[in-house]
Amino acid sequence: MTLARKIRKGDLRSIARLISMVENDAPDALPHLKVLFPHTGPARIIGITGPAGAGKSSLINLLIKEIRKRNERVGVLAVDPTSPFSGGAFLGDRLRMREHLADPLVFIRSVASRRGPGGVAHALPQAVRILAAARFKTILIETVGAGQDEVGILGLAGVVLVVLAPGVGDEIQALKAGLLEIGDLLLLNKSDLPEGRLLEDQLLRAGIPADLLLPVSALKGEGIATLVERIDRLCGKKDPQEIWRRFCRWEMQHLLEKALVLEGMRRVGAGLLAKAAERVARRESDPYTALTALVQRGFGAGRPRKGR
Amino acid sequence: MTLARKIRKGDLRSIARLISMVENDAPDALPHLKVLFPHTGPARIIGITGPAGAGKSSLINLLIKEIRKRNERVGVLAVDPTSPFSGGAFLGDRLRMREHLADPLVFIRSVASRRGPGGVAHALPQAVRILAAARFKTILIETVGAGQDEVGILGLAGVVLVVLAPGVGDEIQALKAGLLEIGDLLLLNKSDLPEGRLLEDQLLRAGIPADLLLPVSALKGEGIATLVERIDRLCGKKDPQEIWRRFCRWEMQHLLEKALVLEGMRRVGAGLLAKAAERVARRESDPYTALTALVQRGFGAGRPRKGR
Repeated sequence: MTLARKIRKGDLRSIARLISMVENDAPDALPHLKVLFPHTGPARIIGITGPAGAGKSSLINLLIKEIRKRNERVGVLAVDPTSPFSGGAFLGDRLRMREHLADPLVFIRSVASRRGPGGVAHALPQAVRILAAARFKTILIETVGAGQDEVGILGLAGVVLVVLAPGVGDEIQALKAGLLEIGDLLLLNKSDLPEGRLLEDQLLRAGIPADLLLPVSALKGEGIATLVERIDRLCGKKDPQEIWRRFCRWEMQHLLEKALVLEGMRRVGAGLLAKAAERVARRESDPYTALTALVQRGFGAGRPRKGR
Repeated sequence: MTLARKIRKGDLRSIARLISMVENDAPDALPHLKVLFPHTGPARIIGITGPAGAGKSSLINLLIKEIRKRNERVGVLAVDPTSPFSGGAFLGDRLRMREHLADPLVFIRSVASRRGPGGVAHALPQAVRILAAARFKTILIETVGAGQDEVGILGLAGVVLVVLAPGVGDEIQALKAGLLEIGDLLLLNKSDLPEGRLLEDQLLRAGIPADLLLPVSALKGEGIATLVERIDRLCGKKDPQEIWRRFCRWEMQHLLEKALVLEGMRRVGAGLLAKAAERVARRESDPYTALTALVQRGFGAGRPRKGR
């Protein structure tokens, strides 16, 4: 059976294999992706973000359980910004999700936010397509709400959940500004603690609408059924086609950015770039003037010489 | 007096103003940058990274004090990945550095890692140039060692310090893989605590060479004089010209990536990109084929139509 066919049947190992190929920029991934493409379509893409320690992974764990009651496939793609250091997600998070390992309808994987030139977490949208082709109806994307990359990644999600918890300190202050823009729902984790109440009061006083807040407790498993209801309602409001269209726009924008850099760099050539940098270092040219010449070269004013 | 002249004289407000202009992509920043360019030259660019809570800011605070004993200018550029949420660095860090506010030879500023298309913390290298033109001999760049962007940013530094501390838990595990590659020196903060010793032992047993480790205590101010000596020695080994050449290469690479995306996107046109995404969403074309056509358009096979 071909890899694409195995994926269509929901084979988790084949899904993981093709995602790895995409991550590694393997050229032989493309034919598989093309075969799968007609089968990729509307999936519920749910972004989950928030500071480290807020309890994202634990909540995702409970979310999986709750969604699985419907006997639907659930995929989790964890974009872990710590991966450049570790070469993968932290073991702890993966262990926490171990209980789903035996479930053939649950796929969990960390996707490296490995940045090629052009700065694109290029594997992520293709991983979403692969899961969609394998009939995963709900795809959860976990990012640490820290860098702008991570926030940018949420642009491909139809619904964004922001996980907060007491004791994250300064974060609340920091989050205030951007929260309303990126979060469709703010989950207040550890709401079973007195500090949880305090955080809720704080956020309400900061002017955050009450219907945007949902107290939950990953520890006690409280609020999870309500959370799934709220997600359903949010997805319902947005229409799966619209979520998918948003995803496709994000995907094309990022594919194009990456391709422009790769093709442009190829046309300019590493040699010419190094020479320009050397001239700048020797102060024979300022970087802005050198840049203009390189860009002209990239876009064909003056053909690129062969062998460059 | 012109802005560039004020900057040359070391006027901190003028430095901050031009950095802001660069951050905001103000077109009138360019003439100032060009005037300053001939005065930009070798500076000691020192990257400082490590997990949140390891004590980077406190150490930088002490480093500033130590370096200031020589009556040299010190600049700190903090690339804070939390800024997209907050619109700036956390207040706490800035407060900690408040004691230097009255010192006209110390410049501290958070630089947004605002990512234009092409994914470039574009303001950072220009901020370095502006400080270099103002005769700042030492420029410290602080990043949270989390995302790959942050690690990538350290590519412009001549010397990289990694700050670790006990209680950062999983991080040690995670750091191990990448540490030796990015860090010229590992600072073990909180070495006055028994847990600090433990961390040192752990790292040594993990095979990290002893001469790469330097125990310090930001709280007690211990090890800071030694740290400055080590930095001097590291910078001495690398030769300031080589550090500067490295900086120029990083700068040109990133300026070019950004320019290629901007120019390419302009040539493709937002309309054509949106149409392609729409066709992909309707499954009339797969993204990979659509991409090829867009890239060809970007690089002039088929001229861009007017008004696009």
